[in-house]
Amino acid sequence: MKAVTYKGPNEVQIEEVPAPTIQASGDAIVRVTASSICGSDLHLYHGRLPFAQKGFVLGHEFLGVVEEVGDGVTDLKSGDRVVAAFSTSCGRCYYCRRGLTTQCMRGGQVFGFGQLSGGQADYVRIPLAETTCERVPDTLDDTQAILIGDVLATGYYCADIGKVRPGDIVLVLGCGPVGLCTVMSAWLFGASKVLAVDSLPERLELAAKFGAVPVNMAQEDVNTAVRQHTGGRGADVVCEAVGSQEALRSCFGYARPGGSIAAVGVYAEASFEFPIFLSFLRDLSFRVGICPAKQYMSTLVDLIQSGRIDTTPLITHTMPLEDSAHGYDIFARRTDGCVKILLKS
Amino acid sequence: MKAVTYKGPNEVQIEEVPAPTIQASGDAIVRVTASSICGSDLHLYHGRLPFAQKGFVLGHEFLGVVEEVGDGVTDLKSGDRVVAAFSTSCGRCYYCRRGLTTQCMRGGQVFGFGQLSGGQADYVRIPLAETTCERVPDTLDDTQAILIGDVLATGYYCADIGKVRPGDIVLVLGCGPVGLCTVMSAWLFGASKVLAVDSLPERLELAAKFGAVPVNMAQEDVNTAVRQHTGGRGADVVCEAVGSQEALRSCFGYARPGGSIAAVGVYAEASFEFPIFLSFLRDLSFRVGICPAKQYMSTLVDLIQSGRIDTTPLITHTMPLEDSAHGYDIFARRTDGCVKILLKS
Amino acid sequence: MKAVTYKGPNEVQIEEVPAPTIQASGDAIVRVTASSICGSDLHLYHGRLPFAQKGFVLGHEFLGVVEEVGDGVTDLKSGDRVVAAFSTSCGRCYYCRRGLTTQCMRGGQVFGFGQLSGGQADYVRIPLAETTCERVPDTLDDTQAILIGDVLATGYYCADIGKVRPGDIVLVLGCGPVGLCTVMSAWLFGASKVLAVDSLPERLELAAKFGAVPVNMAQEDVNTAVRQHTGGRGADVVCEAVGSQEALRSCFGYARPGGSIAAVGVYAEASFEFPIFLSFLRDLSFRVGICPAKQYMSTLVDLIQSGRIDTTPLITHTMPLEDSAHGYDIFARRTDGCVKILLKS
Amino acid sequence: MKAVTYKGPNEVQIEEVPAPTIQASGDAIVRVTASSICGSDLHLYHGRLPFAQKGFVLGHEFLGVVEEVGDGVTDLKSGDRVVAAFSTSCGRCYYCRRGLTTQCMRGGQVFGFGQLSGGQADYVRIPLAETTCERVPDTLDDTQAILIGDVLATGYYCADIGKVRPGDIVLVLGCGPVGLCTVMSAWLFGASKVLAVDSLPERLELAAKFGAVPVNMAQEDVNTAVRQHTGGRGADVVCEAVGSQEALRSCFGYARPGGSIAAVGVYAEASFEFPIFLSFLRDLSFRVGICPAKQYMSTLVDLIQSGRIDTTPLITHTMPLEDSAHGYDIFARRTDGCVKILLKS
Repeated sequence: MKAVTYKGPNEVQIEEVPAPTIQASGDAIVRVTASSICGSDLHLYHGRLPFAQKGFVLGHEFLGVVEEVGDGVTDLKSGDRVVAAFSTSCGRCYYCRRGLTTQCMRGGQVFGFGQLSGGQADYVRIPLAETTCERVPDTLDDTQAILIGDVLATGYYCADIGKVRPGDIVLVLGCGPVGLCTVMSAWLFGASKVLAVDSLPERLELAAKFGAVPVNMAQEDVNTAVRQHTGGRGADVVCEAVGSQEALRSCFGYARPGGSIAAVGVYAEASFEFPIFLSFLRDLSFRVGICPAKQYMSTLVDLIQSGRIDTTPLITHTMPLEDSAHGYDIFARRTDGCVKILLKS
Repeated sequence: MKAVTYKGPNEVQIEEVPAPTIQASGDAIVRVTASSICGSDLHLYHGRLPFAQKGFVLGHEFLGVVEEVGDGVTDLKSGDRVVAAFSTSCGRCYYCRRGLTTQCMRGGQVFGFGQLSGGQADYVRIPLAETTCERVPDTLDDTQAILIGDVLATGYYCADIGKVRPGDIVLVLGCGPVGLCTVMSAWLFGASKVLAVDSLPERLELAAKFGAVPVNMAQEDVNTAVRQHTGGRGADVVCEAVGSQEALRSCFGYARPGGSIAAVGVYAEASFEFPIFLSFLRDLSFRVGICPAKQYMSTLVDLIQSGRIDTTPLITHTMPLEDSAHGYDIFARRTDGCVKILLKS
Repeated sequence: MKAVTYKGPNEVQIEEVPAPTIQASGDAIVRVTASSICGSDLHLYHGRLPFAQKGFVLGHEFLGVVEEVGDGVTDLKSGDRVVAAFSTSCGRCYYCRRGLTTQCMRGGQVFGFGQLSGGQADYVRIPLAETTCERVPDTLDDTQAILIGDVLATGYYCADIGKVRPGDIVLVLGCGPVGLCTVMSAWLFGASKVLAVDSLPERLELAAKFGAVPVNMAQEDVNTAVRQHTGGRGADVVCEAVGSQEALRSCFGYARPGGSIAAVGVYAEASFEFPIFLSFLRDLSFRVGICPAKQYMSTLVDLIQSGRIDTTPLITHTMPLEDSAHGYDIFARRTDGCVKILLKS
Repeated sequence: MKAVTYKGPNEVQIEEVPAPTIQASGDAIVRVTASSICGSDLHLYHGRLPFAQKGFVLGHEFLGVVEEVGDGVTDLKSGDRVVAAFSTSCGRCYYCRRGLTTQCMRGGQVFGFGQLSGGQADYVRIPLAETTCERVPDTLDDTQAILIGDVLATGYYCADIGKVRPGDIVLVLGCGPVGLCTVMSAWLFGASKVLAVDSLPERLELAAKFGAVPVNMAQEDVNTAVRQHTGGRGADVVCEAVGSQEALRSCFGYARPGGSIAAVGVYAEASFEFPIFLSFLRDLSFRVGICPAKQYMSTLVDLIQSGRIDTTPLITHTMPLEDSAHGYDIFARRTDGCVKILLKS
């Protein structure tokens, strides 16, 4: 089968690799119909991850149709349409029972990272398939459903751990795919106003399309904008969706006393200079974490079906799997107005 | 001054009464600029309340400008624009500290009921004014702000005590002013779908304008509609905004197992035939209560200012205070497409 | 094998019945080491349930050792010590994922009721065994662990749905096994004081042993006692553990404004005369439901192991399975100081 | 009147100063009957605070009897017994309404810090007295009630923001007064086990008296102890009550995945090396803050009255105000088994 594989820093290619087969009784083999490239794939792409091996199949955002299931699988059958969470989970262990599916004691593997082959391919093997996948109803097409298992879940998680409540003013720092999904999610928790901060005009335009007040940090002082939109008080909730130390540090200045800061960017460094004295004096809550996507996916399917969430404007490019090298290139360089790319298998 | 007074069953009239004066150090006198007629005023209007006395000034939905304050008032001053909660509260007692402002131990009086003169008048006296009123910013006109202190707060409260959560399917039974405000509020708590049930086409149209799926109970079987829109399961949350026993009873059939039922109608009877065995087996939550409006008003001001809530379509009629007898008449009979009437003082 | 079977109203006997065998891949056969008689078994015993058939094996409170498992079971193996929830659940369906295990779409069967043979026997078949059972660590003996799957879980659930919070004054009406477990649980949620109401002195003594203030309703006026212990205000939370209409009705008078009432008794009648006008005026929360025991069992095991909960004083009688007819008799008549009976298989 | 005043680094003395008088209409003058020395007083005592001025009256933990009130005070009168929160609050502003009383826009002053004279004196002036104080019932003596407004509230707050839930294993790092109050509070939220870590044997003994498992970090490896008491998983909640960077850093290793870390120590440095990558991967919640004591005081009074909380064992020393120089000395050096000192005025 064809698959997108890692070839070395800044290089991926389509190559022919063996199709996956059932390895455990809980596995399913899924024929991928669409996949997408995620910001966290870039850590691999740029060669920053020591374990990245040449020939490894990439991709943890994908959906498709079940082709075959292991003999322990009773909830899924050939022909079912599913989207996978970015990581595997059993649904039954100590952590899964608490909704912490990324901490799953039996699963916890991320597709296209480490040992588990990814989904930017014709077929993919899904371990613990019953609990790692969510069904996709036929009323949703691939473009509507592709982001459920990672980027959308992460944006939703950010609003959730940021504890957005009705009436809150929410600031979202970074209008990449996760930031934009956070903007959409903030409304679901009752935000009265969302300030969306970035420096790329096309991303700010998208944020505005999703109802946010765009703040172009290349052109205006963010602190001034925050004061102006919050009666001088600061935002109730600040969501960090960039993943840089500098960005995160600035969040502590944007939050009002008693406010909360939620960070879902992936930080490359081990530690962060946390402004602890300020946070103490101002009672600031801080929460960082890796989204337990599976936990949210069924709700997200409902919200997309009913039209309350629509992530299709994020998909700025659609291309065949064969063009993925080009896709990775424009996505990594943020050129061509690229926000999110759909790869069709 | 002029005021709307009770004259006997189904009869109100405008008459000249003495203007109110400061009676306690926490009082404020407010020059009313607008008031409205509430469904609960009809209990009085129809002569169903034994304590209703002729000549009593009606109305608990009103806003205006502070004219004078008692010498214990420091947070309000002449010229401030305010809207009152429907009942008075001190903000400091055991109940107020728990957000139960209608149970206030010092206040708890309802305007235009019992002993406290109402606000359908040129002037009104507001006891415990600092904590009974909420400021209205100049960016909101009277029509936008008039419903904050009662009907809108009650709809919001209904969604709140019904514990609507993101993704939920909410059924609102009754599309009068409170029901329509519940529809609007359900979105703030993340509802994926709202089913709005009534039999008056013009009210269902309004519900649809607010994003709900209208269900005309005069034309279709509500149970069938519920099953169809919820995958056969029943609604996650059912909000009762009618106030009849029969309506409330039906709610228990519309909720899914583990679902919740919130009732904010005013029930005339002392008791209700609660389906306890069914509720036990299906784990149904039930919550009824009188909205602690003051608790929500500041949030509602923010949500209206930012445009997330707009109750102006509910105001189907605007008329001078002088025409209030006609207003009461069409409101009570639900004719002329009347949903909500604004009286201008 | 030997088993306790229903013979007709007020009559059970030990008889020889065929030992259960694996019927589905998720089943386990458990060798029962201890079981107990529950208040809800009495509905059957008294012949009040139309479906009760002669020869049917009773009992839904039991624990033992896994003897054999179906080929779909991977989390349990022969030799594991387990206690079952009173009803079966799959852990994966829509309801189980929301913690509503008694509404399970694949399980939901109650042992010793309807079609599923009970556990007052030498052996029992447990469907959906991995998710219906909880492991019992060797540090707990049978007497410590026997109540986890029903009575203790139900008492805990009552405090949970009653929303007991730190500092609350909790009134528990009825000091049978469930009521006493509610007393114990109220402390875990931070109750400052628990009033325990009953008319049997030996049960009130037990309640006092568990830290409650005993109120003998045969000797003193409960309302007066409530006012006296709550500064005249009423209890924050009222827990109904009797199961009679009259008892439940009285709860609404014991609760303070804004308080909550939780009912876990099993009501024989279809409906209850709910005091709706009072509840409206006083903002009373009401919650009734069938305990999703499985949801709480792992936490309860932890609390018993650490010594924070000890239900052994409830076990007033221990006898061999052979004596169960006598056991049912004294339990049903509440004689001999009987609170809870342990049957040893 | 006599008062404890700051004389320079490590030096306090009793001196005669003018008695306070009413300065604003919301003030009360309280005749102090007892005060105590707090760990945060040591920042001043050690001369680490630049604004510390010679002659300034110290102390923010105190209680007494109202002597006189300003003319705006209606809820308090001469003769009332009260304990003050460590900081003033109005109860009405944006922050107070959200329970963030230390962020109060009208108050927010800390007694014995900055501009506001402290309570280690014969008399003290309390601004915003109605909302800064809590009544002390006559059933509680000074020793029982003295810690309500600061140290006990802070320990309770730590368990609260750490989100301790029934069944949780809680680790409390530091068994000073705040740590010990955290141990007591953890039980109120349902902890199944509390591990208390310190190196002073007498403090560990106190922790054990309050039900905790003492872990002497001078003698055993804390990490090993944590693993052993948590089945290898880590604590559900880790409470930091030391206030050092090193202590706080260690907490991140003690928490289980998805666990939470709450810090209420006062950190001298502006920033903390937050282990962000670890926290991201393991979904760790972090919360730091200054306790909004007023918010909790009424609940704490109830819990002490009912006997669920008893902080009297913390008061290891009682002495007249005249001996406060000695008191500060042994408290600062942690000699003489000193945990907490009560000064009698």
